[in-house]
Amino acid sequence: MKNYINIGLFGLGTVGKGVVNQLNDNGSLIKKRLGREIRITRAVTANPDKERGIDLKNIQISNKINDIINDPEIDIVVELIGGIDLAKSIILQSLKKGKSVVTANKALLAECAEEIFNAAYTSKGLFGYEASVAGGIPIIRNIRESYSGDKIMEISGIINGTANYILSSMSEKNETFLSALKEAQEKGFAEADPTFDIEGIDAAHKLILLMNLSFNAIFDFKSLYIEGIAQIEPIDIEIADDFGYVVKLLGKARDDDKGFEARVHPTLVNKNSILASVNGAFNAVQVMGNFVGETLSYGAGAGSYPTSSAVLGDLIQIGRALSSSDTSSPPPLSFQIEHLRKKQILPIDELETEYYLRFTVLDKVGVLASLTKSLGENNISIRCMIQKSKEHVPGLPVAVVILTHIAREKDIRAAINEIDKMPIVTSPTRLIRIDP
Amino acid sequence: MKNYINIGLFGLGTVGKGVVNQLNDNGSLIKKRLGREIRITRAVTANPDKERGIDLKNIQISNKINDIINDPEIDIVVELIGGIDLAKSIILQSLKKGKSVVTANKALLAECAEEIFNAAYTSKGLFGYEASVAGGIPIIRNIRESYSGDKIMEISGIINGTANYILSSMSEKNETFLSALKEAQEKGFAEADPTFDIEGIDAAHKLILLMNLSFNAIFDFKSLYIEGIAQIEPIDIEIADDFGYVVKLLGKARDDDKGFEARVHPTLVNKNSILASVNGAFNAVQVMGNFVGETLSYGAGAGSYPTSSAVLGDLIQIGRALSSSDTSSPPPLSFQIEHLRKKQILPIDELETEYYLRFTVLDKVGVLASLTKSLGENNISIRCMIQKSKEHVPGLPVAVVILTHIAREKDIRAAINEIDKMPIVTSPTRLIRIDP
Repeated sequence: MKNYINIGLFGLGTVGKGVVNQLNDNGSLIKKRLGREIRITRAVTANPDKERGIDLKNIQISNKINDIINDPEIDIVVELIGGIDLAKSIILQSLKKGKSVVTANKALLAECAEEIFNAAYTSKGLFGYEASVAGGIPIIRNIRESYSGDKIMEISGIINGTANYILSSMSEKNETFLSALKEAQEKGFAEADPTFDIEGIDAAHKLILLMNLSFNAIFDFKSLYIEGIAQIEPIDIEIADDFGYVVKLLGKARDDDKGFEARVHPTLVNKNSILASVNGAFNAVQVMGNFVGETLSYGAGAGSYPTSSAVLGDLIQIGRALSSSDTSSPPPLSFQIEHLRKKQILPIDELETEYYLRFTVLDKVGVLASLTKSLGENNISIRCMIQKSKEHVPGLPVAVVILTHIAREKDIRAAINEIDKMPIVTSPTRLIRIDP
Repeated sequence: MKNYINIGLFGLGTVGKGVVNQLNDNGSLIKKRLGREIRITRAVTANPDKERGIDLKNIQISNKINDIINDPEIDIVVELIGGIDLAKSIILQSLKKGKSVVTANKALLAECAEEIFNAAYTSKGLFGYEASVAGGIPIIRNIRESYSGDKIMEISGIINGTANYILSSMSEKNETFLSALKEAQEKGFAEADPTFDIEGIDAAHKLILLMNLSFNAIFDFKSLYIEGIAQIEPIDIEIADDFGYVVKLLGKARDDDKGFEARVHPTLVNKNSILASVNGAFNAVQVMGNFVGETLSYGAGAGSYPTSSAVLGDLIQIGRALSSSDTSSPPPLSFQIEHLRKKQILPIDELETEYYLRFTVLDKVGVLASLTKSLGENNISIRCMIQKSKEHVPGLPVAVVILTHIAREKDIRAAINEIDKMPIVTSPTRLIRIDP
């Protein structure tokens, strides 16, 4: 047995630099655990000569992909360049050569799951992707190994730190979405182009990955319902608070008798729940198993060091397995390959949950009667209602908020469609789903 | 490769029955993950003929230990009888025979760590003990595998469900300790003899185990400072609440420059922290690594099914490794055996933290001056102070509560010792440490 594991590192950005630093700082500790040294022998980056302010000694740096792929001395390829096409090519080529691969690329794994996981299952190399979901939270290993005796019933979580940071700021400082976003950008919690984070796409990538693993299947990313946070207003956060809720961007998936429910959208979460106390850029993932019951894992969902910690956990696990037969490692998606199936997500119309509905209406006699009649005719039963207006000026629009009992999304949409056409309604109705 | 793994099960109590039920319910799902069947072929229990209301078909049941130990067909021995002597003998004999062992026995692993882990390291068999700490929370695997690239700086947690249930009840219902304990016993959250739980011993067993694993060492259980919750009074919970704290039984250990700090005692925890929202019988463990940062794992800390889920996770992991070289499995205490050391815990006198001090004093002129003089002379600096008495009756004792800045435990004890001898003090001073 060699007394070292050779790593080829693609990408020297935020996470790549974290991995270099972690091996520099904790290398001797890691050797005491693994029994072998993990060393980066090569790195490939678009700008090999850029000054990065980290100690890169003993690492051969180039901009040629094949310098790593074709190096027979490299045991594990670490892909940290992100994006789809080039990253996919690197991973597929590496697996084909029998190398093991560790990646943090959630977009790729979510959107090209079938291609990547098929390659991972059939390669002689091992495949680690802990860093691709929720940074330092070991949710992949928890599901794939710790809960491997459980049927997973439900997963839900706060899996985008940027969105959670913005919603936490809005809630704490009574800010608008735009000013909270600007502040998040200034502090480095949101990127210059924040689309993926605020539109829920990044959270959706992670949710699909967790679903594939939890439900031992491949789901189509495009069939996932996704709604972002840009339309949340301070008034919604304020009224939610009155009712005992906080607003969170939640990814949620359930395996129930009807099929697989899955969605990413802003959600009212009970203030007393543990999810409600997850603030700032932190992430938390809840998993419900039929024996383990309710669980939650909390930690930093992104960032150089928490993500590099997840990469290192995978490198050490693969490092152990490399010296033995690969039957000791859990399959990439938990089930043995012959039991994997493609599965469908239920359409969002089939969802049954509670709803927060904010109507903007003229302050006239008969308005409430019109609203409640339409809701009633669409099988929607009302749990409570409040009217909110800073100053009561006759003739000016007011906010009426209704919380429903459990209702079907299809019925809710039909009712909103009807109501928004009424002359008493001055702005489109806002809907936020409640976690019951 | 055999297409099944044979289990010999010691104990058909709460957890043992859970394991049988989980294999009955989830067996085919587990086979899809592991690629092999896990089957219990033998069980040993003191009362083989007792009716247990579970499906025990295909399991040969006896009361003879050697029926399992000497059966060459048995791959993994599961020890769920608890207690020290007999369980130790079963585990050591099984490891000696080269069988793998899975146990939930925290008392044994904490109090006889050196003997058990030496045997585990030197046996050809593998050793799983996830179920021994915090039931369904995968904290052993998180530390041993997911955070294996990190230097663990600090662990702290709510690791006794009974104590947390009692403190939560006291807080929610303004109950005394004794009435909350009675209610917990009636609802099955506390045993008839609750000593281990309320005195902090069970939490201390778990903390030592987590320390051994996190700090890659063997610590002496007897040197751990342990304080239970029986002396917490409603007035402490009420005043803590006024100051923005809740009272939790916390186990905490830190690796700092001076040495290893470790203790189990009631602690004031900031209301806004995520630990404060862990209520009822739930557990949560925080781990701080030098790269992963702050993490928390939450779930059911005990009970038949969450604990059996942890046993099954270990069985599946060992089941995979059995078909390959055992170098693929992480060492029992994470470090390779040649790097393991015995390490010392710092004496509690060395602790530096913030303190809640409740003095019971006569309501006289000059009392505060006496208290603050003694504190000052012992290098203790005051953060805030309140006086609490339901009705102000001159001559009757009142409660004075002082919160300190960070101080040394040794100084605090010296001051209390001095103060409790003053004639103005009518009852011993109560001390609760604050998590700063």
